[in-house]
Amino acid sequence: MKIFEENESVVRSYCRSFPAVFREARGAELISTEGTHYLDFLAGAGTLNYGHNHPVLKKALIDYIQEDGITHSLDLYTTAKERFIETFNRLILNPRSMGNYRMQFTGPTGANAVEAALKLARKITGRTNILSFTNGFHGCSIGALAATGNRHHRGGAGVPLSHVSRMPYANYFGEQVNTIAMMDKMLNDPSSGVDKPAAAIVEVVQGEGGLNTASADWMRKLEKLCRKHGMLLILDDIQAGCGRTGHFFSFEDMGIRPDIVTLSKSLSGFGLPLAIVLMKEDLDQWKAGEHNGTFRGNNHAFVTATAALEHFWSDDAFSRSVRGKSRLLSERLNRIVLRHGPHSLRVKGRGMMQGIACPDGETAEAVCTRAFENGLILETCGSNAEVVKCLSPLTITKEQIDRAMDTLEEAFSAVLSEPVSSRSS
Amino acid sequence: MKIFEENESVVRSYCRSFPAVFREARGAELISTEGTHYLDFLAGAGTLNYGHNHPVLKKALIDYIQEDGITHSLDLYTTAKERFIETFNRLILNPRSMGNYRMQFTGPTGANAVEAALKLARKITGRTNILSFTNGFHGCSIGALAATGNRHHRGGAGVPLSHVSRMPYANYFGEQVNTIAMMDKMLNDPSSGVDKPAAAIVEVVQGEGGLNTASADWMRKLEKLCRKHGMLLILDDIQAGCGRTGHFFSFEDMGIRPDIVTLSKSLSGFGLPLAIVLMKEDLDQWKAGEHNGTFRGNNHAFVTATAALEHFWSDDAFSRSVRGKSRLLSERLNRIVLRHGPHSLRVKGRGMMQGIACPDGETAEAVCTRAFENGLILETCGSNAEVVKCLSPLTITKEQIDRAMDTLEEAFSAVLSEPVSSRSS
Amino acid sequence: MKIFEENESVVRSYCRSFPAVFREARGAELISTEGTHYLDFLAGAGTLNYGHNHPVLKKALIDYIQEDGITHSLDLYTTAKERFIETFNRLILNPRSMGNYRMQFTGPTGANAVEAALKLARKITGRTNILSFTNGFHGCSIGALAATGNRHHRGGAGVPLSHVSRMPYANYFGEQVNTIAMMDKMLNDPSSGVDKPAAAIVEVVQGEGGLNTASADWMRKLEKLCRKHGMLLILDDIQAGCGRTGHFFSFEDMGIRPDIVTLSKSLSGFGLPLAIVLMKEDLDQWKAGEHNGTFRGNNHAFVTATAALEHFWSDDAFSRSVRGKSRLLSERLNRIVLRHGPHSLRVKGRGMMQGIACPDGETAEAVCTRAFENGLILETCGSNAEVVKCLSPLTITKEQIDRAMDTLEEAFSAVLSEPVSSRSS
Amino acid sequence: MKIFEENESVVRSYCRSFPAVFREARGAELISTEGTHYLDFLAGAGTLNYGHNHPVLKKALIDYIQEDGITHSLDLYTTAKERFIETFNRLILNPRSMGNYRMQFTGPTGANAVEAALKLARKITGRTNILSFTNGFHGCSIGALAATGNRHHRGGAGVPLSHVSRMPYANYFGEQVNTIAMMDKMLNDPSSGVDKPAAAIVEVVQGEGGLNTASADWMRKLEKLCRKHGMLLILDDIQAGCGRTGHFFSFEDMGIRPDIVTLSKSLSGFGLPLAIVLMKEDLDQWKAGEHNGTFRGNNHAFVTATAALEHFWSDDAFSRSVRGKSRLLSERLNRIVLRHGPHSLRVKGRGMMQGIACPDGETAEAVCTRAFENGLILETCGSNAEVVKCLSPLTITKEQIDRAMDTLEEAFSAVLSEPVSSRSS
Repeated sequence: MKIFEENESVVRSYCRSFPAVFREARGAELISTEGTHYLDFLAGAGTLNYGHNHPVLKKALIDYIQEDGITHSLDLYTTAKERFIETFNRLILNPRSMGNYRMQFTGPTGANAVEAALKLARKITGRTNILSFTNGFHGCSIGALAATGNRHHRGGAGVPLSHVSRMPYANYFGEQVNTIAMMDKMLNDPSSGVDKPAAAIVEVVQGEGGLNTASADWMRKLEKLCRKHGMLLILDDIQAGCGRTGHFFSFEDMGIRPDIVTLSKSLSGFGLPLAIVLMKEDLDQWKAGEHNGTFRGNNHAFVTATAALEHFWSDDAFSRSVRGKSRLLSERLNRIVLRHGPHSLRVKGRGMMQGIACPDGETAEAVCTRAFENGLILETCGSNAEVVKCLSPLTITKEQIDRAMDTLEEAFSAVLSEPVSSRSS
Repeated sequence: MKIFEENESVVRSYCRSFPAVFREARGAELISTEGTHYLDFLAGAGTLNYGHNHPVLKKALIDYIQEDGITHSLDLYTTAKERFIETFNRLILNPRSMGNYRMQFTGPTGANAVEAALKLARKITGRTNILSFTNGFHGCSIGALAATGNRHHRGGAGVPLSHVSRMPYANYFGEQVNTIAMMDKMLNDPSSGVDKPAAAIVEVVQGEGGLNTASADWMRKLEKLCRKHGMLLILDDIQAGCGRTGHFFSFEDMGIRPDIVTLSKSLSGFGLPLAIVLMKEDLDQWKAGEHNGTFRGNNHAFVTATAALEHFWSDDAFSRSVRGKSRLLSERLNRIVLRHGPHSLRVKGRGMMQGIACPDGETAEAVCTRAFENGLILETCGSNAEVVKCLSPLTITKEQIDRAMDTLEEAFSAVLSEPVSSRSS
Repeated sequence: MKIFEENESVVRSYCRSFPAVFREARGAELISTEGTHYLDFLAGAGTLNYGHNHPVLKKALIDYIQEDGITHSLDLYTTAKERFIETFNRLILNPRSMGNYRMQFTGPTGANAVEAALKLARKITGRTNILSFTNGFHGCSIGALAATGNRHHRGGAGVPLSHVSRMPYANYFGEQVNTIAMMDKMLNDPSSGVDKPAAAIVEVVQGEGGLNTASADWMRKLEKLCRKHGMLLILDDIQAGCGRTGHFFSFEDMGIRPDIVTLSKSLSGFGLPLAIVLMKEDLDQWKAGEHNGTFRGNNHAFVTATAALEHFWSDDAFSRSVRGKSRLLSERLNRIVLRHGPHSLRVKGRGMMQGIACPDGETAEAVCTRAFENGLILETCGSNAEVVKCLSPLTITKEQIDRAMDTLEEAFSAVLSEPVSSRSS
Repeated sequence: MKIFEENESVVRSYCRSFPAVFREARGAELISTEGTHYLDFLAGAGTLNYGHNHPVLKKALIDYIQEDGITHSLDLYTTAKERFIETFNRLILNPRSMGNYRMQFTGPTGANAVEAALKLARKITGRTNILSFTNGFHGCSIGALAATGNRHHRGGAGVPLSHVSRMPYANYFGEQVNTIAMMDKMLNDPSSGVDKPAAAIVEVVQGEGGLNTASADWMRKLEKLCRKHGMLLILDDIQAGCGRTGHFFSFEDMGIRPDIVTLSKSLSGFGLPLAIVLMKEDLDQWKAGEHNGTFRGNNHAFVTATAALEHFWSDDAFSRSVRGKSRLLSERLNRIVLRHGPHSLRVKGRGMMQGIACPDGETAEAVCTRAFENGLILETCGSNAEVVKCLSPLTITKEQIDRAMDTLEEAFSAVLSEPVSSRSS
């Protein structure tokens, strides 16, 4: 690893927790240069919902490259893009009565999709303020970072982050406190000091923020609040979307219609950079080229994304299987809590983005370190990195889940039984 | 194209100028679904320096995918990344005495690299102000957009763009006016109102801004100015780098040592999203993970980038050939000017990013439209889109250049001979 | 009034509610050119705590002018300033164990004192964020306006207002909701998105915001919160200070030690512009002249301020009398509520800044209009201008209070008995 | 002076250069507690154009106070305000064909008038950017400070100062460089990065910035530039107005019609805080109370201002006398330069705001210190405090000017003849 340490910036991060060099990957497994097989419960922070190198997607991509399909062409029309648009429309939008949404292909990162969404909302409403939520994570470029809660990342901005009012997420002050009513009061009050917002940007499950979840009821009330105060509802489905919660969109069984939806991460299906902003037709008020970027048309990603849609979303089998695995994950996590920390641990999250909240970040980190030693890669999340987060590919087998859970349980058992003082910080 | 028009956001832009659907591409050629072959003098706005689907890069990529090489892994260590770092060091940095630069892999877009560079400069210096230049283009996310000059893009921000002082680029006020002395006066003057900057961000050739060029002398003076006022020199080599001007870096024969360099576009060599920030070792003051992003490790891009480095940069043959083609391009463009508008047209740019400034944007657009009808794709740039810009792959043959120039000459001839009123606006 | 209407900007406001031209004033009375006497329960929005033209202050000022005392001298040392500093120290600071506070004479307006206080807090802490509260009012210059809640005033800024996080004031969400705990949670949470603040700026009684009050307990907890999170406590005592609540400082019986205190309005005692920032000695970290302004040394104001301090604050007689009058005011207001709207009206405020909250702004305005017709000047305040606000001079006689309350009661009676539709909006 | 040093904030400034306590003042003289008489060439940084305690103004003020005239009434209509408006209209606006300007009484400081002017310009145009000039000084509240050039003051802001583009003032780059053409190029260029401004704010003579002057030609071109680009022209006449340059407005013989004019400093005539914004009738687009403040109606200041207008501006005698004294001042300053530093010194400024530029700030400071020891109070200005600034009352006698110039000449002689090393820094 010397070559990394000597030449790569100290900003590198994940590699510090998982000190191995990886060579190949298949499905839910990563394989190091030393031949060690790891179960990947990190999955590119939710980018690999269909696993590593899925054979169907892989074949589609190789075929495309072999035929000299177009890789890059800015936003020229290509056959690969055409197929993606047609397929996304047919398999995702139309069946969900979302045929009236337009697609904007932004720079191929979630942050860039968020930047575009915020710009658009401000442009449409003529307002500058954005409501974003405690523990929300929306990216690290300055526009997106202003909406992100994480102090570590905010601290790197180098300039004060502006034009965002921070609001408490669902249950932030406990289940008894109605945070929607709080927002409503502040927005109604002409002397509250909270300027009328262009939009609220929200995640249904806060992936980085600690697997906090908003109920359908809260989301519906938030949508109502948006309508009432003339602000748009931006649903950031970058991590929770693409099937992660058991449906393609994390919000699709909630009875809401976000004005703008951002997707990225698992959208290409293969781990390739791709991002998209969906907006209701009447909100498509851009001027041509007003938001642009060099890599807006990543055709390789279109190819794998299309293959993934065809393979996984032509019927509801995949969806059902994800929900089945979610239940298994839930059971195993609850068993760990029950056995090893009924008073100190807590299962959080939804669908295939669940985890265990520990009393503190040190415990969570120790668990992850121990698990890695035993071949399981998973990271922490949450305000104090106190949540051990299970984010495996959705294509994982039940056997693999069980195996990973055995490893995780062993790690909890080992960490919680050892004296605190002996743990590394 | 109905599927695009009905479903894609109106923000789409290039496709409006080149109304065809493209199916495949090889070298300097794009091929539409109708079988028409186009010479590509757009080249992904400088992303395809080695052409479309270069066989060497293509083979490397297919081999990698077939072996289940890792596609996505956040910033975990991978063999693909290791090879890239080693090769970039060996073939690019070390031979140019730049072995003391560290590499930061940002989100895989130029804008994200710029965001990181600006953050880092502000962090290091504790200052917020950035000097950026008239006609500079650095991206469309809020942090990068503040440094970008283009009013059309700035207008989409939705918030006022802050923390940047705009300065006149080389020769902006004509060759007689020393813009470095102007900056020096303002920075020296404790009551000028220009706050001491964290950095100046500059392009050696302004690709989007109109193929404006800075001389080695101006760049050296700018570097000196930076040293004198304790600000960093950020060289945005996203469009002009990777061989475009005849050297790997656009600045490498100028005798300067930028503190921070941003690269993207042609870095992967294959049109795949990849971006990197190079900073002098002592400036690598990030905290781990302080600037992050999901697609920082685009391993496919590492694979093709490494293949491109080995194939094109192991010796100086490629560099020399680029310089040879640049001379040819220059001759042909000058001939057009001489023949069709010695008083109204002007050749601008450097190396393989040259073009012809027209009296106005309408003329330039008409030329591009005519050229497209005859199988040549090229776009305009500049403040008023008045510059016809030739940005072919560097791997183009001299015969292809000649053919493209014939087409371009015909377009100029046709447009300039027709009455103004008959042109579409 | 034609001359005003034809020549003065439409921004004028109070004169619209009180359409008379005033000629002279004594104590609690304003006298119009038509000879009508009005009881002044507006008192310059709290500027005239000692009434109009108090004879003792008046004499001191005339004597000073007659002797060619210095009126203006920037911040040169003058005898008038020396006497003020000495007297303020002797009669106000020292007896309250505040001898360690330094005095900064800012531009002679409350807004300017707030600007200075915010600058200083940011300078000391190196942080940019400020916590300010719902319904808080701190002035209309851009720095102060960012901390002000009022949407009408914020809307006039012309730029987005930044660098302030808005927090709920005491009881903002009802008496059951502990807003200090909310703030603490957000400040503790490293991913809440609320950046560590330089300071919290707070009023003990929100004069413009609707006579909302904070309890001693809440203020003590706020002070503790400030200490815990390394932020300064700025107490804006511009309206509630100078005896308005029965003590010189509104907070002096609360057991807290604000880091910075702003005073203005009644500080000169005579209605003359004067403002001061008090800061604990170790926080006096200004560079010489760093915050400046032309009218920092208003010597006439020093003269009347000194006379007011000697006359009213040499012993506790004045304080006691104010508290006595406060009780009378309270009784009379409560009687109005009891008689005319036990379910719809509510007494708010503290000391000599009390009023009656009406169901809506129209009612409150109608009450004020009616009262004015009967010789009583008073204005509304609150988010929806729904609070009828009694802000008489503290030197008012009990007889005058009774008389004013009779008028006010008549106005409530008349307004509440008439059909809503007949009221002007 | 112990009482100041122990109790007043270290932010105090002028008093450091003039270590005496002043007791009384008459005309152009300040008298210390020790009985020393000083000629006042500081004059409240231009606030005392009519001298200290002018008997006519003094009498008017004492009469007003004795009759219990209203001192403070927010913006209620008063007889004092009525008289001021009528008189200002009759003697100032109408004779100058400016009868179509409306008057806004802002908070009684120049900074507050500037804040209001900037707000209004942004409100009217819907743009946020403001052009302000190198070495411009417009006040220290955050909105005004952003337009101010001085780094010492900007450094105290505590937040980055935004929404202003800095432009070179007349002759900033030397007499050969046409700074209007530079601005025009940047504003015309849709990719310059300079956003279309709401307004340009400018001083005809930069009082704090170093007595830099703009010619009538430059001002006319600036006005034209404003019209061309749809931006307002804000003329900050706070220091140069009220007769300082020999006319009431500094710009009145230049053939321009600023959209907005700010006045303060000498407006009250007596050194009392007062400020006003004049705007063309059609620009009076405020909502009632949108910009407000407690001390908008300083009636004492109205009284003295009215008396000053009647006394000095009923005919052109005063104007002519000021121009006569200006010539004397000019002669004497030029003589100093000629005798003591024809190569190193330079006379700057216009009218009764002239001074001598020294090679550096140390020399200028030494001259002022020496002059003070001999009974002459004057300060430095300019980027490096290198300009010795003569800003006496306009009512000064020629004999007093001669006496002050003798003292000044002696100071220059003494300072320039002594070895550099012996000067205090």
